[in-house]
Amino acid sequence: MTLLRIDGERLWQGLMQMAEIGPGVAGGNNRLAFSPEDDAARGLFRRWCQAEGLSVHSDRFANQFATRDGSEDLPPLLIGSHLDTQPTGGRFDGVLGVLAGLEVLRCLNAADVRTRRPVTLVNWTNEEGAIIRPMMGSEVFTGALALDQARAMTDHRGRRISDMLDALENGAGPNGPGFPVHAYIELHIEQGPVLEQAGEVIGVVTSGIGFRRWQLRFSGQDAHAGPTPMETRRDAMVAAAHAVLIADRAARALPGARATCGRIATPNGSQVTVASQVELTLDLRHEDLAQLDRLTARVLREIEDQALALGVGFACEKTTDSSPVPFDSGVIAAIEAARIQNGFPGRRIVSGAGHDACNMARVCPAGMIFVPSANGISHNETEYTSPEHCAAGAQVLLDSVLMLAG
Amino acid sequence: MTLLRIDGERLWQGLMQMAEIGPGVAGGNNRLAFSPEDDAARGLFRRWCQAEGLSVHSDRFANQFATRDGSEDLPPLLIGSHLDTQPTGGRFDGVLGVLAGLEVLRCLNAADVRTRRPVTLVNWTNEEGAIIRPMMGSEVFTGALALDQARAMTDHRGRRISDMLDALENGAGPNGPGFPVHAYIELHIEQGPVLEQAGEVIGVVTSGIGFRRWQLRFSGQDAHAGPTPMETRRDAMVAAAHAVLIADRAARALPGARATCGRIATPNGSQVTVASQVELTLDLRHEDLAQLDRLTARVLREIEDQALALGVGFACEKTTDSSPVPFDSGVIAAIEAARIQNGFPGRRIVSGAGHDACNMARVCPAGMIFVPSANGISHNETEYTSPEHCAAGAQVLLDSVLMLAG
Ligand SMILES: [Zn+2]
Ligand SMILES: [Zn+2]
Repeated sequence: MTLLRIDGERLWQGLMQMAEIGPGVAGGNNRLAFSPEDDAARGLFRRWCQAEGLSVHSDRFANQFATRDGSEDLPPLLIGSHLDTQPTGGRFDGVLGVLAGLEVLRCLNAADVRTRRPVTLVNWTNEEGAIIRPMMGSEVFTGALALDQARAMTDHRGRRISDMLDALENGAGPNGPGFPVHAYIELHIEQGPVLEQAGEVIGVVTSGIGFRRWQLRFSGQDAHAGPTPMETRRDAMVAAAHAVLIADRAARALPGARATCGRIATPNGSQVTVASQVELTLDLRHEDLAQLDRLTARVLREIEDQALALGVGFACEKTTDSSPVPFDSGVIAAIEAARIQNGFPGRRIVSGAGHDACNMARVCPAGMIFVPSANGISHNETEYTSPEHCAAGAQVLLDSVLMLAG
Repeated sequence: MTLLRIDGERLWQGLMQMAEIGPGVAGGNNRLAFSPEDDAARGLFRRWCQAEGLSVHSDRFANQFATRDGSEDLPPLLIGSHLDTQPTGGRFDGVLGVLAGLEVLRCLNAADVRTRRPVTLVNWTNEEGAIIRPMMGSEVFTGALALDQARAMTDHRGRRISDMLDALENGAGPNGPGFPVHAYIELHIEQGPVLEQAGEVIGVVTSGIGFRRWQLRFSGQDAHAGPTPMETRRDAMVAAAHAVLIADRAARALPGARATCGRIATPNGSQVTVASQVELTLDLRHEDLAQLDRLTARVLREIEDQALALGVGFACEKTTDSSPVPFDSGVIAAIEAARIQNGFPGRRIVSGAGHDACNMARVCPAGMIFVPSANGISHNETEYTSPEHCAAGAQVLLDSVLMLAG
């Protein structure tokens, strides 16, 4: 097929140059969506794209689109990711997908290869959701969230999104691409340890995991730690401890499942009082909806049964519900073929985190490429992916683009 | 033996009158040590005692002593408890022991019974420790805590104990009783459910339980709840949940043992992140020192082994260590005899909470009488002990006094 090779050195220098905008305190980045640093990153992105002769437009939610025309007037192939970061974020999460996309277009320019379809590189607005809900840019683009509703929202400090949008120098415009979109491909770091531990380079992502989150509340009876015999207690802490282990064991017993109790609190707790109130978060994930349903039902029922057996009241409130998102078999096949033709060791993998690709998958064929995260770490300034792995991901993206854009 | 009967109606009216000083918001009391309300309670106590012809003195830590002379110049028998309460305390914890002591002396006066030994009624300063450490009055009296050191301490708001002591109208004086003390008896509510559930009236307390407290810290690895497979996690929450259940099961398996994890926290915890830091309090109790040692060693070792098996770091810091306090066999026998001669159903029982009697037991023969707490509740405004049970406790105290004061 192709003999085009991406320039790993040029890609790496771009990543390091982008990382100079909004540096963190420990080698990573602090480039919150809508911040001056985000604005500066948008400006650099626009200038880089314009220097490549791409036509750059923004839609009304400030998603940035840089288009390289195809030989025919067909729906475009979209590639990209996001340039915003967590407050103590890394240099690769999101940024790699955008800059590898730019590298792909640079390669096509350098080789003067003309694809049939236009290829559009996108930088989604506010993917991280560090200040408000995540993946808003692709939500608005796909119509899952109305523009007016998005603009009317306020962040955790009470600032209106519309005000922050309108204050951007590299902000909203009238010219987003329309539908239909031919397909969407996003290259991203894995954010988990699987590829690295297996000594593999490329993850061909088959789906976005489904997840549900609950706030669990256990209500027992406060009582003196000393005078109250064990057998007369109604200890909310013991019920909550059982809940953590019930969820953990259920997820370990079901391949592909994840269960996490990340936050716990004993409001008004005292070291010398049997706990009457414990609040616990529960996050359950699985790639298969039926399995997620079964896991959910079983874990909540066991937790409730155990609490009742201890004389402890149990209540749960669902705070998030996101169904699994299967990616497109054609896009998956193209990425798999690109991986194999380059001889990169890899595997099919499920994305455990949410991505803009999950929103896109609801409106067009979509897929993702993962590259290894050192020690599985992300959303952390020490996040790292080697130059070789960044280049491998970009090469697979390039070859997938060639297949899908024709 | 005696035909003296305490006046249950007079005792109850005294309890209700005292409860008018520093009322709570839900039927209980808010009469913190050193507060104006505590001062008012001290004044009422002094006036009631003086009206009975008792000689009332305070020592340098403001412990109040009201003495009824004996026929001989012998070391006195001390009885009493405390009038301070928790901020949302009840009407009986401590108050019953003081006012039942007053009722005993009133009975002796009314019947003109002369004991061989003086009988001294005491109201200990700051038993509850709601604002600083508990049982300071008896600590200073018994020499476990030096007066200067006690006065130099500051409460949770940074106020010096010396300033608060000196501001009391019914405060410190030069005239505490000296040593030796013949014996000490304290009537107190059980603060647990044992007597009520057994349908019993009197607990003959054989010892103060020993207790040890730790702050446990579990250190795992934070990781994304989604992309991180179960088998690669080092989840501090799971290790902490095991710890709660290890302690709970160990205490249930050992008669007389208590284990309580009353407070837990995940600093910087997030519902979508595997917990890297969990802090947990552990309180272990047993009446027998060797058993407490074994329970302690076993629970901490199991918690550590389990944490290490999960790849989670474990550290513990002991914050309190109080050995079991056996009460005096002679005092126990007198209380038991008084219980039996009155036909009150009851049992030998261990005090699960700390009391001034535990400090006294280190310097003189000491014992305690328990009466039922409705629903086992104390340190709560709904704390309740019926007039009949209050009277029964006072009657046992009276008959014990007659035996021990000669
Ligand atoms: Zn990302
Ligand atoms: Zn008390």
